[in-house]
Amino acid sequence: MWRVMETPLNCAEEQQPPPAFPASWSTVTPQESPADRNDKGNAVGFVLVHAGAGYHSESKAKEYKHVCKRACQRAVDRLKAGALAVDAVTAALVELEDSPFTNAGMGSNLNLSGEIECDASIMDGKSLRYGAVGAVSGINNPVLVANRLLSEAQKGKLSAGRIPPCFLVGRGAHDWAVNHGIPPCPSEKMATKFSLSAYKRNKHKMELAEKVDTGFNHHSKKRRQASETENGSGLLDTVGAIVVDREGNVAAAVSSGGLAMKHPGRVGQAAHHGCGCWAENTSTLNPYSTAVSTSGCGEHLIRTMLARECSSAMQCEDAHQALLEAMQNKFISSPFLASEDCVLGGVIVLRCCRCSDAQPSPDIQAILGKSL
Amino acid sequence: MWRVMETPLNCAEEQQPPPAFPASWSTVTPQESPADRNDKGNAVGFVLVHAGAGYHSESKAKEYKHVCKRACQRAVDRLKAGALAVDAVTAALVELEDSPFTNAGMGSNLNLSGEIECDASIMDGKSLRYGAVGAVSGINNPVLVANRLLSEAQKGKLSAGRIPPCFLVGRGAHDWAVNHGIPPCPSEKMATKFSLSAYKRNKHKMELAEKVDTGFNHHSKKRRQASETENGSGLLDTVGAIVVDREGNVAAAVSSGGLAMKHPGRVGQAAHHGCGCWAENTSTLNPYSTAVSTSGCGEHLIRTMLARECSSAMQCEDAHQALLEAMQNKFISSPFLASEDCVLGGVIVLRCCRCSDAQPSPDIQAILGKSL
Repeated sequence: MWRVMETPLNCAEEQQPPPAFPASWSTVTPQESPADRNDKGNAVGFVLVHAGAGYHSESKAKEYKHVCKRACQRAVDRLKAGALAVDAVTAALVELEDSPFTNAGMGSNLNLSGEIECDASIMDGKSLRYGAVGAVSGINNPVLVANRLLSEAQKGKLSAGRIPPCFLVGRGAHDWAVNHGIPPCPSEKMATKFSLSAYKRNKHKMELAEKVDTGFNHHSKKRRQASETENGSGLLDTVGAIVVDREGNVAAAVSSGGLAMKHPGRVGQAAHHGCGCWAENTSTLNPYSTAVSTSGCGEHLIRTMLARECSSAMQCEDAHQALLEAMQNKFISSPFLASEDCVLGGVIVLRCCRCSDAQPSPDIQAILGKSL
Repeated sequence: MWRVMETPLNCAEEQQPPPAFPASWSTVTPQESPADRNDKGNAVGFVLVHAGAGYHSESKAKEYKHVCKRACQRAVDRLKAGALAVDAVTAALVELEDSPFTNAGMGSNLNLSGEIECDASIMDGKSLRYGAVGAVSGINNPVLVANRLLSEAQKGKLSAGRIPPCFLVGRGAHDWAVNHGIPPCPSEKMATKFSLSAYKRNKHKMELAEKVDTGFNHHSKKRRQASETENGSGLLDTVGAIVVDREGNVAAAVSSGGLAMKHPGRVGQAAHHGCGCWAENTSTLNPYSTAVSTSGCGEHLIRTMLARECSSAMQCEDAHQALLEAMQNKFISSPFLASEDCVLGGVIVLRCCRCSDAQPSPDIQAILGKSL
């Protein structure tokens, strides 16, 4: 069995999160709000953010809505000041990362060793460049590193003809960030009371599960039992945003602390090109500009390259139908995930046609897919 | 200007590397050689390996041919013993990594800090699973870690319902490998006389270039000057192999020490899903099984996802023409690389139709693309 929850949003009609969606999916429609116009009354763009597909605590629904709203506002402020989409989307992500309630930056899930290692990536639809960091510790805003990697690469080659990196991981990513003026943050300051207590709870759960498992002799049987009796999907989450600016440029970004109790060094879709986010301006090949940001189980989103698949689907005339089909055929019932007993992922997408010099008028959509 | 060098190979006719190709591209055609049949005289499969697209020293041409031949033989031996494609391709990669002449495992390029950090990945066309390691130090055979990640993930979830990783980097990848029985190797033992002297030479070159650059005040101008006067492409290389076994299963793998003088923590296409290698068995959706292994500039191969693009092209009836077009439109003149002044990459590809119970009969092809 599978289920696709979908909510087509008309930006002229909807300004609130769709009711069928988790509280943490939030939209604002800058074009329709007076605050989203500049001093001359012109629309400045469009921003859409999410705080992750997963099982969020109902008690924190209000907080998630607030942080999503603040993230939108940060991006809108940047757009109003004339920033391009790629800078506005970074501003939204910084706000999401700074919240102790999201699984990104501050307050991220702890890994098996009790440490925080973050993934983040960004894509600029104008230059089609991408920047990413994986398993980086001691950096509060990994999206700033991804953004800086992107902008540094745009400057051309390094000394002696060396090609600038687009993807850095671990200690090397940390050191590169600090050398490029991004402030480090002691790891212990990034953990919150909530993330520390979740770590203790998860550790206890793991120890219990492993104690039970030792009763089974056959290794594969043991593994399968664990997967049937436990549900790890409550430990998911990735935050993200997509933006179109007044010139019609699109950008997308994601950031994540990754799975709770992940192995140190594990990198998820948030750092993986084509899997965590995608942004592509309109071109001779593509009638629409598209931007996508995903959330869900990193390993599933990597193997299906869901962000890029959704971007391709959005080039169809009937994007709504094409997206539903992509979510079903390329994700939930994808042959790449045939052996998985539970598949969970969500996307926010945006497409924008720029047929004339008129301001871009985006269609947006959010879809959550889950195998049951 | 651009150039695509292509050599369609008919496995019934060709047993030697194509003349238009760098010496390091080597093919063997197990089906045609008595040594490539098992005791009952049945064909055991097909193996194709490469030692990297780049500028190799002519003086080492013989060594490259030898190591490619040995790698093929290792894979053929595994196939003869009844192994599946994924194990045979791993065996080929181990041989390539063990050679001090290739930029993978032993003898890899040193990074900016004088250390070796390796990337590797593997894809199994049967399960469509992928395993990868990035920027891992102190492991002589990173492909063994990638292979182990793949096989561990196949066993199902970990304790307490945790999802097993498919991609590990840095110290975490090293520790996971050692905990799973893969022997560590002190980094200093992985460096060779050749890689150490190349490091010294490159460091000197960099220092000279940076001294010259300090004369320029404008940063972007400085960067551009450097890219025009130097040629870093001699520092490229990734080794790889593709295999089809007697059952028609395909597998692909790549391994690389990455760019010489890369920043610590930099991850290239060899660890990136869809970029370094691709393997997909025939299915209701795909008439052909395909396997691809790429080599060239990691950042360019990541941004264009070349392995997956070539696999898609191979599903066309006229695969030869489709591949040439993919190499031109999706790589050399790709909008994703529009700002690059030099693009270099190569692929080996294989497709295989299994219309009946007959033994698989693969078509193979190798293409090298370079913008001039």
